[in-house]
Amino acid sequence: MDVPPFDRAAFDGYAVRSADTLGASRSNPVVLKVVGRSMPGSPFSGSIKEGEAVEIATGAPLPEGADAVVPYEEAADRGGVIEVYRPVPRYYYVSRRGEDLSRGELVLRAGTRLRPWDLGVLASMGMSRVPVYRVRAAVISTGDELVEVDDVRGAPPPGKVVNSTRFALVGLFREMGADAEYLGLLPDDEEAIRRALEKALGDFDIVATTGGASVGGPDATHKAVSSIADFYVRGIAVRPGRPNGAAVVGGKPVVVLSGFPVAAIVGFELFARPAVLKMVGGKPEPSPTVKGILTRRITTPINVRTYARVRAYAKGGRIYVEPLAVTGSGVLSTLTRGNAILVVPENREGYDEGEEVEVQLLRGIEEEP
Amino acid sequence: MDVPPFDRAAFDGYAVRSADTLGASRSNPVVLKVVGRSMPGSPFSGSIKEGEAVEIATGAPLPEGADAVVPYEEAADRGGVIEVYRPVPRYYYVSRRGEDLSRGELVLRAGTRLRPWDLGVLASMGMSRVPVYRVRAAVISTGDELVEVDDVRGAPPPGKVVNSTRFALVGLFREMGADAEYLGLLPDDEEAIRRALEKALGDFDIVATTGGASVGGPDATHKAVSSIADFYVRGIAVRPGRPNGAAVVGGKPVVVLSGFPVAAIVGFELFARPAVLKMVGGKPEPSPTVKGILTRRITTPINVRTYARVRAYAKGGRIYVEPLAVTGSGVLSTLTRGNAILVVPENREGYDEGEEVEVQLLRGIEEEP
Repeated sequence: MDVPPFDRAAFDGYAVRSADTLGASRSNPVVLKVVGRSMPGSPFSGSIKEGEAVEIATGAPLPEGADAVVPYEEAADRGGVIEVYRPVPRYYYVSRRGEDLSRGELVLRAGTRLRPWDLGVLASMGMSRVPVYRVRAAVISTGDELVEVDDVRGAPPPGKVVNSTRFALVGLFREMGADAEYLGLLPDDEEAIRRALEKALGDFDIVATTGGASVGGPDATHKAVSSIADFYVRGIAVRPGRPNGAAVVGGKPVVVLSGFPVAAIVGFELFARPAVLKMVGGKPEPSPTVKGILTRRITTPINVRTYARVRAYAKGGRIYVEPLAVTGSGVLSTLTRGNAILVVPENREGYDEGEEVEVQLLRGIEEEP
Repeated sequence: MDVPPFDRAAFDGYAVRSADTLGASRSNPVVLKVVGRSMPGSPFSGSIKEGEAVEIATGAPLPEGADAVVPYEEAADRGGVIEVYRPVPRYYYVSRRGEDLSRGELVLRAGTRLRPWDLGVLASMGMSRVPVYRVRAAVISTGDELVEVDDVRGAPPPGKVVNSTRFALVGLFREMGADAEYLGLLPDDEEAIRRALEKALGDFDIVATTGGASVGGPDATHKAVSSIADFYVRGIAVRPGRPNGAAVVGGKPVVVLSGFPVAAIVGFELFARPAVLKMVGGKPEPSPTVKGILTRRITTPINVRTYARVRAYAKGGRIYVEPLAVTGSGVLSTLTRGNAILVVPENREGYDEGEEVEVQLLRGIEEEP
């Protein structure tokens, strides 16, 4: 349908026939008789004839016969009549019927993530329900060394670590609008993992695993995926996240991620996010970035894309980017101590101190004294 | 607690005593006896003595006596013994206990919006529950001209428009993490609006109204707020959104917004978002921006901050920004046809064609042929 569904005032003032205002000026105003009032909830029911005007509020329907609005500022109320001080063209301060959205027009494309104003547009068109894609995502964790946070009181038992990666992955899926479910923690047991994968692939659109994908360590997940995959890539030139992989099993994507949280997050961005976007026909969303001056040289291996965690801050009107020292791929605190990611491409061995780099912001930038 | 809770391997290889590798080289390798294996889920239980090594996987606890990891690449397996080709320093490829997070350290500040990796950090520290702020927000719509989308089949009755602003506002509150509830549509009746406001202020932390705040039109909401407000500002130098206002009633914020969707969204950004952030001690989140070349002059009034809707697109390796034609403040389609907002500050009368401007992106940028 047309939005607005009728011609309406775009400003407070008087609805007039534009032809009547021809030749109006400060020294020679046109005088019009005010025959009524049009408010958004109570339109003027009659029509305007030559020499007549109707007081009108923004959003109110334009009375029949009127084709323009003279704002209060360009007229004077003389008690029952107004003086108009300038000629107004047709449709002056009028929102035309269908001006916002017109009948038959494409309003939202498939693949659009519905944001608050999109819901407003749909409502404007009289649509209270629209079909949407909703991706069902499953997360499976594996690893003999893991314990669940709910089973830990205080510190984990000796040699064990808390399974933290599951929370990061479920959260990332949910932030994308997917229905994500955590299916639980499995030991490093190829057969158990294969059964869990096959069950999950029956119930979900995409499955992400964490752990059991390393090259020199436990690889039960890797073996389980290999045994059922139609297609499987594994071992990628990124740091952190080299063991990450992705497979297709029965037409569905299985994302095989490192058990280490930061490596798993990098793998999510490389494999899971594009897969979910592809399933819903969506486009990547823009991410906040900022340019700043590197405070220290950052050295990275050639032919490897490096996701360096950095801290961006403002000082004296400039923005600086400080690389954070890390040794492992599990170092989640770099994402809380830092606030940004610097992606160093494959064809570079790093960036020099003082060089300007563009980083992806995870949080806002703070001012340093 | 410390994370990791123990020293662990940061790479696949062999756990060694760094002192044993002193002087090792390709031509004169150090030979060490492999006495066991340490995996993440099944650590080596003994300790390493002089001349010994333990095969180790990334993430596995470093055996007692070992203080470094020699990666596979820098050693050779000779059946029961390994040859090490270079000396390694102490803690080479070792993630030290407490290196990621150390006991007693501040991990997350109050006012942090919890993102997926933050949940991972909390889990790493053994915390499955943390207290959070959750703002309860209410939205009240007013306007005799409005009908609810669920009451419309096809087009709304003559002179009526669908209440679309409520969806935009509830959505904006929810995207901020607030619990937002829509309380319904009221006629332009001061007394009814005052009663609804007083009830809402008893149940919610912040109340936003839409409609009934205009200067020349219906102002029942404005009157109702005036009658109970401790403090009330109204009429702001922005376009669209001049009628927007904000009040404090019994210590709680009431945001008085235009009934027109785009004007209301601008008012939300100016009043409601900062109020919610203030309540949770949060900081503004970074928003994606891009710089582009203006394809057409944009003219704005001086002393008014203008939120111009624009379309940013890429063409031939450059980014362009095209202003969208608008006449009204209700024109939601500019937010779906366009993909960005150009804020023209109060001290400018616009920007010239060809000027570089920075815009806030609502969606991604597309390539034009």
